Amino acid sequence: MEVAQVLRMNGGAGKTSYANNSFVQKKAITLSKPIREEAITSLYRSTLPRSLAIADLGCSSGPNTFSVVSEFIKTVEKLCRKLNHKSPEYRLFLNDLPGNDFNSIFNSLDSFKEKLQTEVEGGIGPCYFSGVPGSFYGRVFPDQSLHFVHSSYSLQWLSKVPVGIENNRGNLYIGRTSPPNVARAYYHQFQRDFSSFLKCRAEELVEEGRMVLTILGRRNDSEDPASKEGGYLIWELMTMALSEMCVQGIIKEEQLDSLNIPQYTPSPSEVKLEVLKEGSFVINRVEVCQVNWNPLEDWKALEFECERSESLSESGYNLAQCMRSVAEPMLVSHFGGHIIEEVFSRFQEILADRMSKCKTEFSNITISMTRKA
Amino acid sequence: MEVAQVLRMNGGAGKTSYANNSFVQKKAITLSKPIREEAITSLYRSTLPRSLAIADLGCSSGPNTFSVVSEFIKTVEKLCRKLNHKSPEYRLFLNDLPGNDFNSIFNSLDSFKEKLQTEVEGGIGPCYFSGVPGSFYGRVFPDQSLHFVHSSYSLQWLSKVPVGIENNRGNLYIGRTSPPNVARAYYHQFQRDFSSFLKCRAEELVEEGRMVLTILGRRNDSEDPASKEGGYLIWELMTMALSEMCVQGIIKEEQLDSLNIPQYTPSPSEVKLEVLKEGSFVINRVEVCQVNWNPLEDWKALEFECERSESLSESGYNLAQCMRSVAEPMLVSHFGGHIIEEVFSRFQEILADRMSKCKTEFSNITISMTRKA
Repeated sequence: MEVAQVLRMNGGAGKTSYANNSFVQKKAITLSKPIREEAITSLYRSTLPRSLAIADLGCSSGPNTFSVVSEFIKTVEKLCRKLNHKSPEYRLFLNDLPGNDFNSIFNSLDSFKEKLQTEVEGGIGPCYFSGVPGSFYGRVFPDQSLHFVHSSYSLQWLSKVPVGIENNRGNLYIGRTSPPNVARAYYHQFQRDFSSFLKCRAEELVEEGRMVLTILGRRNDSEDPASKEGGYLIWELMTMALSEMCVQGIIKEEQLDSLNIPQYTPSPSEVKLEVLKEGSFVINRVEVCQVNWNPLEDWKALEFECERSESLSESGYNLAQCMRSVAEPMLVSHFGGHIIEEVFSRFQEILADRMSKCKTEFSNITISMTRKA
Repeated sequence: MEVAQVLRMNGGAGKTSYANNSFVQKKAITLSKPIREEAITSLYRSTLPRSLAIADLGCSSGPNTFSVVSEFIKTVEKLCRKLNHKSPEYRLFLNDLPGNDFNSIFNSLDSFKEKLQTEVEGGIGPCYFSGVPGSFYGRVFPDQSLHFVHSSYSLQWLSKVPVGIENNRGNLYIGRTSPPNVARAYYHQFQRDFSSFLKCRAEELVEEGRMVLTILGRRNDSEDPASKEGGYLIWELMTMALSEMCVQGIIKEEQLDSLNIPQYTPSPSEVKLEVLKEGSFVINRVEVCQVNWNPLEDWKALEFECERSESLSESGYNLAQCMRSVAEPMLVSHFGGHIIEEVFSRFQEILADRMSKCKTEFSNITISMTRKA
């Protein structure tokens, strides 16, 4: 599997698009807001830049793409008013893999900018947006060209499926029945990838530049897939849907056996360890927060605008659609498009059942760092 | 008509895509190559930059998008070898209106880069590509952030249809039957737009930065639409196709009357005059070249790779497809999609007839400038 070719969120603005189904990711962004605000404020106060270069890595397309940028600009403008400074110029780089739906981002850019101008009293500094395609496991930007790097819900995706896990039969990820080498191989791939990521960003960030990353991970160091950690469980339930179809002869056993998801959900210490090993960054803060699989639970508190309230009652439906918007292109490339409706219909039932029986959560790790001088 | 909303080349890589039908534009790029080479060489020799920022404005999508970038890098690398310099870093900005098919550019970026690396002996310096959506009649880039600006076959498009030409009935552009105010209104809109363009680029280019623009224009100052200038004639023939359909009741007369194309084909002196008036640039060179409507004529000489040789015999077909790839989104937004096949089928017949009877050419103006210090 060529990850860079098949890993992309569903584009456009349709029913199964990422734009309309990225509730969980939205919650993760909302929950980590104070950490970003702290980092942006500290960056601005210590450097007082006239021009700010900000990159969002793994920006995808849809409302989440703009929410971080909007928050960033608002925070800086608020600071400028407070300190009686002139607004800086903003250079905003939206990065994702080349298969991402950049057209959809670009088409909503003008209305986003207009809205932002009216939302901030006195207007905002000049904004220069660009789309930057490419894997963030390699270099994406010139030397020392960025002041702030953000990435949310992207770094759990690996650059490739780990090698040597052909024996991970009947599992899509590290599962209860996976041989011990599987978890090790996944972890090693994460180490290699995350360390490449850090090395590249260290070259691209200016000294004292800041980076805030939110990664779908695990609450603690337990490596037990039976631990009910959301990152394990979600693929275990997806495996159940596919296994049923396997038993009924709709998909072949070899097909299921040969699919392994290029994802790793690290623990907070695994994340910290790589940062310390790489050595270019000071860690300012690491936080873990839980996001419920059921977006209804704390919806109102997050003031999330949702026009699809009638379907919100079906929490299984929501998460299934969310996972579909994330995993469909990958599953289509492996199994073909004909099985997709059925996979996600079964998956939705399995999810609804599980969610009615126990509390199911994703763990997100947010780490805030400063590029050493 | 909101030009920024409806002006875009046909996206993708299908039969009617710009990517597959931009022969005339390709020829214009090939013919102006020596002028760009001279400008790039002079820029490199005078500034010896470690990092080069190059913008292609109105990049569209398809092979032409990459050909200028590729040529630019090859020229610089050749110079580096000659002068025994290390390769610089390249920052390449591809700009077009937000409706452009950036996804299609981004999807072919990796293979383009790989190809380029193999074509240049010893490899090339690091390349950082980004897509920058927005109208070049406003600011697109930060202050003094570019070394070289290129634009080909884009600046004849106006930011809007001139105001006050409601009396231009039965014409799509300045036609034989247009009242005299029409040509004046078009020219004034060109002046306003081109002067905004120059002002913005003057702010974005570094001192001594270079700019090479190729504009679909007129050979000389004649304003006579009966002069057989390609820029006039092509819309006159398109008007014929639409008028026929009007007579047959397929489209309404009001619909035809109310459509005016947001394009102006300036003369060399009109272009020069705006540059002198704006005052930020030294003009190094202005050249006019003719491109035949029939791409067959000097095809082989240009070493244009074409896999569709069977259709090349139909020169009317080729130019009709070319015009379709350029004008379809605009016509669809005005008339609706149902008339498109018929318009271009009629247009093709009219073109074939005209091209068999007389030599038909487009005039391209290429102007090379240096940002004053």
